Amino acid sequence: MKPIGLKEKNNITYINDFSINDLVKEYKTPLYIIDEKQLLKNINDYKDSFKSLMFKTNVVYASKALLTKELTHILSEKDLYMDAVSLGDLFVAKSSDFDMKKIVFHGNNKSLAELEYAVINDVGIIVVDNLYELKLLIDVTNRLEKKINIMLRVNPGIDVHTHVYVQTSKLSSKFGESIFDDEIIHTLISTLLTSKYINLIGFHAHIGSSVMEAEAYQLEIEKMVAFQNKINNEYHLSLKHLNIGGGFGITYTKKNKAMPIPKMISKVIGYLEAEISKTNSLISDVYIEPGRSIVGNAGVTIYSISQIKPTYGMKNYLFIDGGMTDNIRPALYEATYEVDVVNKLSENKEHLVDVVGKCCESGDIIRKDALIPSVTDQDLLIVYCTGAYNYSMFSNYNNMLKPALISVGDKVTLWSRREELSDLIRLFK
Amino acid sequence: MKPIGLKEKNNITYINDFSINDLVKEYKTPLYIIDEKQLLKNINDYKDSFKSLMFKTNVVYASKALLTKELTHILSEKDLYMDAVSLGDLFVAKSSDFDMKKIVFHGNNKSLAELEYAVINDVGIIVVDNLYELKLLIDVTNRLEKKINIMLRVNPGIDVHTHVYVQTSKLSSKFGESIFDDEIIHTLISTLLTSKYINLIGFHAHIGSSVMEAEAYQLEIEKMVAFQNKINNEYHLSLKHLNIGGGFGITYTKKNKAMPIPKMISKVIGYLEAEISKTNSLISDVYIEPGRSIVGNAGVTIYSISQIKPTYGMKNYLFIDGGMTDNIRPALYEATYEVDVVNKLSENKEHLVDVVGKCCESGDIIRKDALIPSVTDQDLLIVYCTGAYNYSMFSNYNNMLKPALISVGDKVTLWSRREELSDLIRLFK
Repeated sequence: MKPIGLKEKNNITYINDFSINDLVKEYKTPLYIIDEKQLLKNINDYKDSFKSLMFKTNVVYASKALLTKELTHILSEKDLYMDAVSLGDLFVAKSSDFDMKKIVFHGNNKSLAELEYAVINDVGIIVVDNLYELKLLIDVTNRLEKKINIMLRVNPGIDVHTHVYVQTSKLSSKFGESIFDDEIIHTLISTLLTSKYINLIGFHAHIGSSVMEAEAYQLEIEKMVAFQNKINNEYHLSLKHLNIGGGFGITYTKKNKAMPIPKMISKVIGYLEAEISKTNSLISDVYIEPGRSIVGNAGVTIYSISQIKPTYGMKNYLFIDGGMTDNIRPALYEATYEVDVVNKLSENKEHLVDVVGKCCESGDIIRKDALIPSVTDQDLLIVYCTGAYNYSMFSNYNNMLKPALISVGDKVTLWSRREELSDLIRLFK
Repeated sequence: MKPIGLKEKNNITYINDFSINDLVKEYKTPLYIIDEKQLLKNINDYKDSFKSLMFKTNVVYASKALLTKELTHILSEKDLYMDAVSLGDLFVAKSSDFDMKKIVFHGNNKSLAELEYAVINDVGIIVVDNLYELKLLIDVTNRLEKKINIMLRVNPGIDVHTHVYVQTSKLSSKFGESIFDDEIIHTLISTLLTSKYINLIGFHAHIGSSVMEAEAYQLEIEKMVAFQNKINNEYHLSLKHLNIGGGFGITYTKKNKAMPIPKMISKVIGYLEAEISKTNSLISDVYIEPGRSIVGNAGVTIYSISQIKPTYGMKNYLFIDGGMTDNIRPALYEATYEVDVVNKLSENKEHLVDVVGKCCESGDIIRKDALIPSVTDQDLLIVYCTGAYNYSMFSNYNNMLKPALISVGDKVTLWSRREELSDLIRLFK
């Protein structure tokens, strides 16, 4: 779906009053663009709707969707938390002057070096995945004599309807420990209670990605609130923090519409308030972790078109100057994107094409069966909803260059420069 | 399958007399290693078996599998051609002092800038994909007043049994023009004959990747030789060069064995000689383009193991410190790799595990259902056959660092240094 800043006037397509043609003249193609107004709207929607009189609310941006220095500055201004899943993420946050107290550190297999970096740099919350990791962390904190807040990642065992690669709460998931496994839960809690530096504040769960059904969160919240209450009772604890993760789906195409953020989140708030009050839960602080739904629909990618190539096999290809290197999601998850031809948004769409890139690989597809108007090699293609998991998953396959990433609001800001040819050989002797 | 340089002696695993433990101490994990002896054997196997008294033979290394400066030096020494599929590839070749006369330049959607670079730098052969590109190239050569040898990429319409993403010769493929489409072939040839700088030397076809059946090449060769003869007759030409592409499969796992290179290639030579002599073809120069089968089984990846994590859902996970960022092939193509625990190659394999990485994603799998011995967090995992399409498809997803790539023969050579944290922010302001 189109970002709110996108408009066409007299056959010129603009993002917040900057014509895409002008942006491309400066930054070349392919070009990743973030519509700053859409981005801020998404952030504000979360901040405005994730509110309760019953508990404190914290929005944690899931940075694996997209992480740049400029983006962390916006998150800071808006007072959001941010998650990190690797030493690299922690380093980028730190070197962007992001407040490390507002970092939630995730990952199923954190290394000793990562845990040390997190503790030394006073990361706000470490979400501990498993017993092995807990023991590493206890050693680190003992050695450094530093306190740390942790949550335990648990698995409430919920199957959501999404691509199998992004289901994370099946009972056999690699993430966390099952809430049904009393033995491992007991071992985890009794182990951490022996540490004078580890402060357990609550539990974390995450049910998957691109979740469209609010009921999945209802189920998660019921299970997690009950589980946290049970643990508080059994171990005479007063754990007050609950992190229900993210995974909120977005509208990539008209055929599969997601609920608007305020609607989805007000439902989530309703489920939380109902469960907490019904069960007299101690929960006082709730976290959600949206990533895709904050940056996804704010992003578009602009490509240069060369031609529509017909084939003897009857399929017509629209050739563009990027592809699976800048957007692996169609090949990896069979993701579907909507596309338009820049400056021709309202023209008759009479050509059925597969939009494909320039990689030497048949899987290099951006969109199957798109309808587009007639084009020339002066035209540009716009692909919507590419703000999440495009830039962050870029690869230099075929020695393609990483495109520039800019944000466009009242002004244009370069978030990440375009790679130059010399970048391709920088790691060689 | 294990590279030839891999040995275990007294429970120490070596590659050509360098213990993997020592290599990891210096270069960290994950670590890509190329066994230079296996690499040279593969190259020599091609050079020795792709020979004929009837025509000149040229082995073109398909660089999208793996391309580094040091590798191009080996190819130069061994007198191989190399293909390129982008401006980036051309730049890497050029800056490695590779003889540009030995470059075959491919791609379905070459840009004007790429064609100019290729012509200015005297690339040996440009494989022209389509009419639009041919016209661009004619303009470029007219402007630069420079001659260039070209082949036309054509599609013989052969379905091979491989992953749908790497079938490239279906009638509806994006690559080349169909040999059955007389009209477009006529337009291409009559257009190029008007140019005084374009020299058509023959045709190119490529039937797909990971092809296991020699018969697929037989079919291709029959069709291509007949097609080239027909064009020579119809247009009174004497095209003498034929490029049959690559796609030769390798043995990733014992369950799916590929023919050894000499056997496969001697069959290919047999098919070529039979067709050329049977049809009195003018063909005097034949090219093949192996990539995967030159570097694939020469490469291994070494990871640090942290633990085997059991789950309530009964699946056991072996956690390693890399994953889909350094090897996307299991997630992207459902590729299967064989694995071992370093220094424990001959120990009892009693644990059934899924080998998974540290990305926050359930699709971050390196190998499903592997049998491994007991491990501790001092152990290393070796994944075989990762020389092709691993390093070249690396992504920084989750801000993971690109591993070092070394070659190990009589000595150890750093082909590509490990990324440092500062590399992650080099493109930001």
